[in-house]
Amino acid sequence: MSDTLPTSNRQVRLLHRPEGLVRPEDFEIVEADVPPLAEGEALLRTVYLGMDATVRTWLNQGEGYLPAVEIGEVVRCSGVGQIVATNCDAYEIGDIAISLNGWQEHTVVRDDLYTTKMPPGTELLPMMSVFGSTGAAAYFGLLDIGQPKEGETVVVSAAAGATGSLVGQIAKIKGCRVVGIAGSDEKCAWVVDELGFDACINHRTDDLKASLKQHCPDRVDVYFDNVGGDILDAVLGGLNMHGRVVLCGAISVYNDKGRKGGPANYLNLIARRGRMEGFITLDFWDRFPECTTQLAAWAAEGKLHWRNHVVDGLERAPEALNMLFTGENIGKVIVQVAPERPPT
Amino acid sequence: MSDTLPTSNRQVRLLHRPEGLVRPEDFEIVEADVPPLAEGEALLRTVYLGMDATVRTWLNQGEGYLPAVEIGEVVRCSGVGQIVATNCDAYEIGDIAISLNGWQEHTVVRDDLYTTKMPPGTELLPMMSVFGSTGAAAYFGLLDIGQPKEGETVVVSAAAGATGSLVGQIAKIKGCRVVGIAGSDEKCAWVVDELGFDACINHRTDDLKASLKQHCPDRVDVYFDNVGGDILDAVLGGLNMHGRVVLCGAISVYNDKGRKGGPANYLNLIARRGRMEGFITLDFWDRFPECTTQLAAWAAEGKLHWRNHVVDGLERAPEALNMLFTGENIGKVIVQVAPERPPT
Repeated sequence: MSDTLPTSNRQVRLLHRPEGLVRPEDFEIVEADVPPLAEGEALLRTVYLGMDATVRTWLNQGEGYLPAVEIGEVVRCSGVGQIVATNCDAYEIGDIAISLNGWQEHTVVRDDLYTTKMPPGTELLPMMSVFGSTGAAAYFGLLDIGQPKEGETVVVSAAAGATGSLVGQIAKIKGCRVVGIAGSDEKCAWVVDELGFDACINHRTDDLKASLKQHCPDRVDVYFDNVGGDILDAVLGGLNMHGRVVLCGAISVYNDKGRKGGPANYLNLIARRGRMEGFITLDFWDRFPECTTQLAAWAAEGKLHWRNHVVDGLERAPEALNMLFTGENIGKVIVQVAPERPPT
Repeated sequence: MSDTLPTSNRQVRLLHRPEGLVRPEDFEIVEADVPPLAEGEALLRTVYLGMDATVRTWLNQGEGYLPAVEIGEVVRCSGVGQIVATNCDAYEIGDIAISLNGWQEHTVVRDDLYTTKMPPGTELLPMMSVFGSTGAAAYFGLLDIGQPKEGETVVVSAAAGATGSLVGQIAKIKGCRVVGIAGSDEKCAWVVDELGFDACINHRTDDLKASLKQHCPDRVDVYFDNVGGDILDAVLGGLNMHGRVVLCGAISVYNDKGRKGGPANYLNLIARRGRMEGFITLDFWDRFPECTTQLAAWAAEGKLHWRNHVVDGLERAPEALNMLFTGENIGKVIVQVAPERPPT
């Protein structure tokens, strides 16, 4: 046990279920006590929180792949930090770990599925933006569910986002033609000029259907969908025979209560003998080492690039979450909760 | 060559593209000449035409998995009959064959993918209702795409239709719990009492969501979808982890121009790690013998039952096609074009 235990734990708790974008008044900031550690528990100090669109879905009523965050609960969210107190054989003080830290300064963790210890010296920021669950979503979603083959055409939406930008780069490494879809010319320029995508469509200004036809002359073999809505429909319309749609998320839908239907073009799955399949990164947890090792090797070879969009301060987490839906960010939106080095 | 060649060939040709249900005035009935047979061609006399919902989709503008039927063309449709003239080594006069006969009395066929010769003595009617492409849709769609395992729950819509009724029976043979969805109490009674389904939901009178919950206590592992629309949405909502949705057709959608969206619950494919996949029976053409042999064996063991809903006369083909959408039929809707025995 450490004798420098923090005495209070700032938390962002859910106060109302939001509709659409979250508002500051949907949450309350609370100074909670740090609970005493039971046998098998350790205390994880959060440095960074990684914003994922899925966090927004957990704020809605009803069970998804995890239960909804209840009113009064800390908002669930992945993060990275250091162990600052331990009553668990699996962790020593100073260990770096990723977990479902939540929107709070400190988290009680156990030696279970949700917490993974990283090697000493691991850089914290890339654990949010390129390794950890972001990289795993791109890696397993594209390779295991999408199964792209060399020479095939891969399309990815939210292409300048954390996951999308990695999906496209991995697809390039695998020898595919890669076409991104993003919401600004700046984003499109980044993924083409710096990440090596073959093309990128600005869905706010380009004719999506015509652009898909132009940039995917052999149609779309794999579509990695982060957005849903009209973009999913358009790509379904351009699906190739035996095409695969990887459902990672639907940021255009999560906030849109008015939207009634799903993709009308789903019937193209019959004509083109296509497959649309969802996945959850957590299911691949036992293969995270494979993924991290491979991504690290590609990064060392200079084949993977990424950006961090760091927002400073736990109280700005709601604002940071909204960026995923308003499209302000390029790369991973990360909330810095505390300095990288713990107090000594 | 036969010297008793028919001299004229009654055809039903497309005159206007229909909206919704077809009307008699969307077609014209024409007495065409029988063309002389070129080298490699034979003449197939149609006895029965099998009505499939897919025929309706071919009448719309735009290419699906086959080109649209053009204005002035004979309506494409599968059928069975006998060879009555031949200039092709593959066929002798009297051979029984299934083909894309079309809505006409005689069809010129070749030795290609679209025409399959059946053994002498093959009964014609079951080729439409249980063997041939109907049986193949049920067999390959359920087993290859749906991949049901013993003890799993299989749900099938249009359960009293030709394909759905076979899907449920094959699933029972494979040891699954089978729940049908149909549009009348009479249909539900048939599939439960005579075909051995475990339950059947009347979607016109029952609360679909509550009934699904009641009859699928372990959720839905495989859904064989013939109808699309609200029923697809409801079953997606009850999908089990790693559930599979087999897209065979969407009879609730084909005629419904007003319907804008697809299944809003498609996002459940993420939460439940589900897969939704389309198929076309033609893709399994090279495995038709496997399918026919297996179905015939089950039929001989008394494990497969079916009904024929025979409508008499080529000119009633439009009316027969509509039955698939209005739900008047139980079992396969078949148009009898000519007597079973050819004139001698």
